[in-house]
Amino acid sequence: MKIKDIGGEFGLIERIKKKVKLYSKGVIAGIGDDSAVLEYDKHNYLIFTTDSLAENRHFFKSFKPRQIGMKAIEQNVSDIAAMGGLPKYAVVSFGLPKNIDVDVIDGIVGGINRKCRQYGINFVGGNLSSSGQIIINVSMLGFVEKKYLALRSGAKIGDLIFCSGNVGKSAAGLELLKNNKKGKSIKNHLEPECRLGLARKLVKIGINSMIDVSDGVASELRHICEESKAGAIIYADKIPISKNAINGAKKLNRNPLDFALYGGEDFELVFTANKNRLKQLKKYDVTFIGEVVDKKYGVKMIKNGRKYNLRNGFDHFKK
Amino acid sequence: MKIKDIGGEFGLIERIKKKVKLYSKGVIAGIGDDSAVLEYDKHNYLIFTTDSLAENRHFFKSFKPRQIGMKAIEQNVSDIAAMGGLPKYAVVSFGLPKNIDVDVIDGIVGGINRKCRQYGINFVGGNLSSSGQIIINVSMLGFVEKKYLALRSGAKIGDLIFCSGNVGKSAAGLELLKNNKKGKSIKNHLEPECRLGLARKLVKIGINSMIDVSDGVASELRHICEESKAGAIIYADKIPISKNAINGAKKLNRNPLDFALYGGEDFELVFTANKNRLKQLKKYDVTFIGEVVDKKYGVKMIKNGRKYNLRNGFDHFKK
Repeated sequence: MKIKDIGGEFGLIERIKKKVKLYSKGVIAGIGDDSAVLEYDKHNYLIFTTDSLAENRHFFKSFKPRQIGMKAIEQNVSDIAAMGGLPKYAVVSFGLPKNIDVDVIDGIVGGINRKCRQYGINFVGGNLSSSGQIIINVSMLGFVEKKYLALRSGAKIGDLIFCSGNVGKSAAGLELLKNNKKGKSIKNHLEPECRLGLARKLVKIGINSMIDVSDGVASELRHICEESKAGAIIYADKIPISKNAINGAKKLNRNPLDFALYGGEDFELVFTANKNRLKQLKKYDVTFIGEVVDKKYGVKMIKNGRKYNLRNGFDHFKK
Repeated sequence: MKIKDIGGEFGLIERIKKKVKLYSKGVIAGIGDDSAVLEYDKHNYLIFTTDSLAENRHFFKSFKPRQIGMKAIEQNVSDIAAMGGLPKYAVVSFGLPKNIDVDVIDGIVGGINRKCRQYGINFVGGNLSSSGQIIINVSMLGFVEKKYLALRSGAKIGDLIFCSGNVGKSAAGLELLKNNKKGKSIKNHLEPECRLGLARKLVKIGINSMIDVSDGVASELRHICEESKAGAIIYADKIPISKNAINGAKKLNRNPLDFALYGGEDFELVFTANKNRLKQLKKYDVTFIGEVVDKKYGVKMIKNGRKYNLRNGFDHFKK
């Protein structure tokens, strides 16, 4: 039996989740959210997350070493941002080919340092081992005030669904790279920027659930609905598709909506909030895209007056 | 310029360490110890560590999936034990080939769960991605009472040096496996046991510095001396070489002392303590192997009345 036979990446996560037991109190959120949330002190939780970048999987020769280091940190910061928190400490496991040039390592470390400086993260340790391909695994610790914690599981029926910034750009950039074409979205793929500052503002306004866009809007919405035991309807014409994604899609003869829904690594935010937050939220770089509904309606998209089921997004083990 | 041209793994760690800056208070120990030590509360520090297992590098087809999961956890627990602490939370990054059998993953997860149960560790999250080889990266959080923290840097001139249990067994087992031979030390390689319980007793007695044996006694001693700005003399005939290592070495026509000094992954402890602790320490499974001396004397071993310089141990980028 292979991973694709048990529902791919998401089936495998469910399978692991079912087998895992907890041995002490203090776990507020474990497997199944962007990061683990752990008891810390009276007012704060500790956030613990991990994410890896592997050569040929997440990145290609097109990446400068510096960009590899930057993205390895950025994707972890995004996971902490999605919980409403602030990152503070990182450890990095480097898997490096024996014959790698030291300049490449210097570049990767330079990228890590650049992002640690940007976010005030202390790079406090790690591990080196030899490997057939470059693999950078970052684990990160952050903090969030208890009152500001955002989970995937907090969506309520009647909530409005929002998406920050614009989406589809990173996936478009990746496809352009794979097809040896040029376009502005390539930079969005190589140097994604997560929405830490915005996420902090949102949790202060008061939202009900949040996730970062790492596997496409459709997939993130399904995660929120699954963890919140709810359904969702989104409107295709409301999704803020990036101009860079639209331009890239033209060159590739693809539908940019697919990049937004099923691509990934935009590191934007998908979140839900009560209707009464709408006025405040309008001041920020966020777009209303749909509503949370009863679970029985499923997770759907309305496009040209027709309803479609939303598939999952990028799956490491299906493509 | 390659990694071997800048002094291998240890040269590379020094190079990275020099480039890294810290952006906030609270880092008690960063790059250069077994784990990072971070401020937690009035009485405790938080310990943060990471370590990976990669197919073909750290393990071979001889490993059962369950043993891969067990070792991935054990080596991180050992890093926390070396600081005098107790492990509490783990996140796991899985790099898996697309066509891997789900039974193999179940086995690895079973091994992780088995060890989490043994140590009371909560497996709270992780990450899945596809990869050419199996790579299991574990990051772990633990706690240590401030008064019990053990660092590599605490050794004092005049301290006695001790080694726990017996050493060389894991390296002997690895060599037997590589040479298709049999022997009891193979189990020591496949299912190493770290010394968490003993480490806790030692820090309560009061020791000055400690490290776990992951790259061989020689290498660990050099780390302690470097971080403590001291030298060391150890006695070859005092080193507690494992019987399994001696038996394995015979079959391989090798010197078992080399396995103890330059092998690795025994996950025993090397530590230093004031002479006045000797009587108390004698009650435990530890052996006196030498003394801490002034830095100017270097890190030496006396064997058959002659002094030898101790080389570094296992280096991922030199062999």
